[in-house]
This record gives sequence, C-alpha cells and structure tokens, in this order.
Amino acid sequence: MSVETHQFDIASEGDSQVVDLTKPVIDALGKGRIRDGIVLVFVPGSTSCITTTEFEPGLANHDLRACFERLVPQFGVKYMHADTWHDDNAHAHVRASLIGQSVEVPLIKGRLPLGEYQQIVLIDFDTRPRSRRITVQVVGD
Amino acid sequence: MSVETHQFDIASEGDSQVVDLTKPVIDALGKGRIRDGIVLVFVPGSTSCITTTEFEPGLANHDLRACFERLVPQFGVKYMHADTWHDDNAHAHVRASLIGQSVEVPLIKGRLPLGEYQQIVLIDFDTRPRSRRITVQVVGD
Amino acid sequence: MSVETHQFDIASEGDSQVVDLTKPVIDALGKGRIRDGIVLVFVPGSTSCITTTEFEPGLANHDLRACFERLVPQFGVKYMHADTWHDDNAHAHVRASLIGQSVEVPLIKGRLPLGEYQQIVLIDFDTRPRSRRITVQVVGD
Repeated sequence: MSVETHQFDIASEGDSQVVDLTKPVIDALGKGRIRDGIVLVFVPGSTSCITTTEFEPGLANHDLRACFERLVPQFGVKYMHADTWHDDNAHAHVRASLIGQSVEVPLIKGRLPLGEYQQIVLIDFDTRPRSRRITVQVVGD
Repeated sequence: MSVETHQFDIASEGDSQVVDLTKPVIDALGKGRIRDGIVLVFVPGSTSCITTTEFEPGLANHDLRACFERLVPQFGVKYMHADTWHDDNAHAHVRASLIGQSVEVPLIKGRLPLGEYQQIVLIDFDTRPRSRRITVQVVGD
Repeated sequence: MSVETHQFDIASEGDSQVVDLTKPVIDALGKGRIRDGIVLVFVPGSTSCITTTEFEPGLANHDLRACFERLVPQFGVKYMHADTWHDDNAHAHVRASLIGQSVEVPLIKGRLPLGEYQQIVLIDFDTRPRSRRITVQVVGD
C-alpha cells in the first residue's frame, strides 16, 4: 500500500468555463505504480469546482452555464460578499460551494471505471482567467 | 492495509427514481475483511448520482423529484445537448453534475457511522429504465 | 500505511448556519501520525452538509443562506415529508442531499492544500440547534 501525489496546472478562462481534466488525470496516474485504490481529484480555492459530465459543446458551453446562471445569477441578486471585499465574484463562491472541490473515482486494475460519455471536469466560476493547480491523490496498491 | 473492490448491479426506472443502496452496500462490505478505512460508493455515467437522504416515500418519491424539476426542468428550458445528440436527457446530465457520482463514508470497526435516518441512495435522472453497476471501493485495514 | 479516526462534536444553531470546521480538523490531524494520504471529513445525518467556502460574514451569514432559501424554500413549497412525520424540516433534507455529507482533501507532507480563502464548513439546515459529531478519517502514510 502506498500514497502517490500528482499535480498539474491548468488554465481556465473563468466565467463558468468547463475544462476537461480526464486526459491529464489519466496521464498522471500513468506516472505512478498504484493500480487499485481510490483516486481523489482536488482543486484548491472556493470559486471553482470539480465534477463529471459528458464533455460535449452543448452541455459544456451552454446547458451547464445556463443552469448556473438561472440558479445562482451573477447579476440581479444581492450578495453581501461584494460589500466585504468589493469583489464581483460572490456568485462564483456560492456556485462552488454547491458542487464541491473534488471527485473520487475507484481505481481498478489501473483503470478508472468512468462511463463512456463521462469526463472529469473543472468548472471555473471566477470572473477572470485563472491557473488552477489540480492534485491527483491516490491511495492503494 | 489493503484494497477491496465490490460491485453489484441495480435496476432503476429512471425519471429521478430514488433507489436505496444501503443494504447492498453493507452486504458488500460484509464480504470483505477491511474493518477501518474509507468506503467509496461510485456509479459510472453522467445521468445519475449518488447521495444520501432519509429514504421515506414523501422525500424519495415527491420532495426530491419536485426540487429537481423546479431547479433543472425537463421541459420548457432550452438545452443545446438535445441538438448535439437528439437526446431528451439533457436535464438528467445537468442534474447529475450538480450532485456528483459518489459518496464517501468512514468505515469504523466494521460499521458505517450513518445517521439513524440516513440512507445511501442512487437517484437515476435518465429518461428510461437503466441497470447501473455500483462499485464499493474500500481502502483500509 | 494506516488508518486514523478522529472525532469531535460541534454545536450548531441550525437554520443554515455555516460553522467553520477548519481549525478542529487541522487540530485533529495534528494528533495523528499520518502525513500523506486522503482526509475524509464526514457528518452523519441527512439535514446538514459539509462543503468548503470562504468563511467571511457576507457569504456565510447571508449569501449562502439566501441561495438555499431561493432554491429550496422553507415555506411556500409543498413537501410530502411533512405529511410522513409531521416534521418541519423537509427543506433541510432536500438541501442536504444536494450538497452531500463529506469533503475529501489530499494530505501532503502534513498539510491540507486548501486555498488561502477556503475553509471546510458544516452547514446545518435543521430547524433547531443540534450537536453534530464530525469524523475525520485519514488513510495514508
């Protein structure tokens, strides 16, 4: 049994851009020796999230964004966070708390049992381009 | 320390049906030898989710469904995913991304410290009956 | 490789109060010997959640609460759960299922790589003060 920590940086445009992390995550796992265990994909910070979706333009560029805009609008809602810091990204914080900053996937004989149309994605809710440091933490055999 | 992988298939009707996974998860753990660690319950695919709730008919058959229908409606909202694949389950994808495809629970002396009224559930948002392969991945002692 | 279980109780007022768990989680980790692995912070029950946010009064006392009230209102929505148990906390159950009862964070050289403005928090949606037993489960080296 052992622990492996892999990290990589990924650029995002913010504004709820959905970024596919599946290939860099699989590439990271390929650099390690653990073949069975639990894989944790984590992003620090409280204005982006990690989840899974079918990464195709309709969902990634429109449907998810439209849902977030409907549920947690950027404008037209009173946010006290704006008063605290004179920031413009309170909606980004609220969206991030709803979804969470990690996904966990079993690792089975060196493979992630994701669905055929299921990708691990970062959604960056911040209001400006960001670089995000993704950690892929693996515990297992 | 070791890793154990348990899998079972579960039938769902789709349409946001809530399916109680608690007993099959506990049965799966009973087949292994790990008594302390982390348990990951995972469903592949991007049109269903795993979470916990009090599994009683009011919440499971009505309140959760009504919430999803209010937040991410099946009809009356423009989904570009429908244009990509001529699918009718864009709402299912969006709902699944909001909740996530796994829960993690500590395993302590062979038991999951769930609340008395807390069950691990699959919610299947797809628009047709599905069979879902659940993985119960355990890392520990 | 080993497993460590730390537990502590935390008081909440309910009514979507956001409680910062970061210091007690770090204090718990300081009592153990594992320095690299996966940390699972878990709350039992189905009327509260664990997530992360920037713990500042604007977000914690207003923006998150206002979002939950908008998305899953306490009043003015028909909840069948109220008919089952004559309870008044159906909204608390629904909110809890949306967010989830745990967060997972990598542990790297004894540290949690959280963002500078990112705290691990309990949000208690119940309608009365509660004491919640938090489990910090660590698997690693």
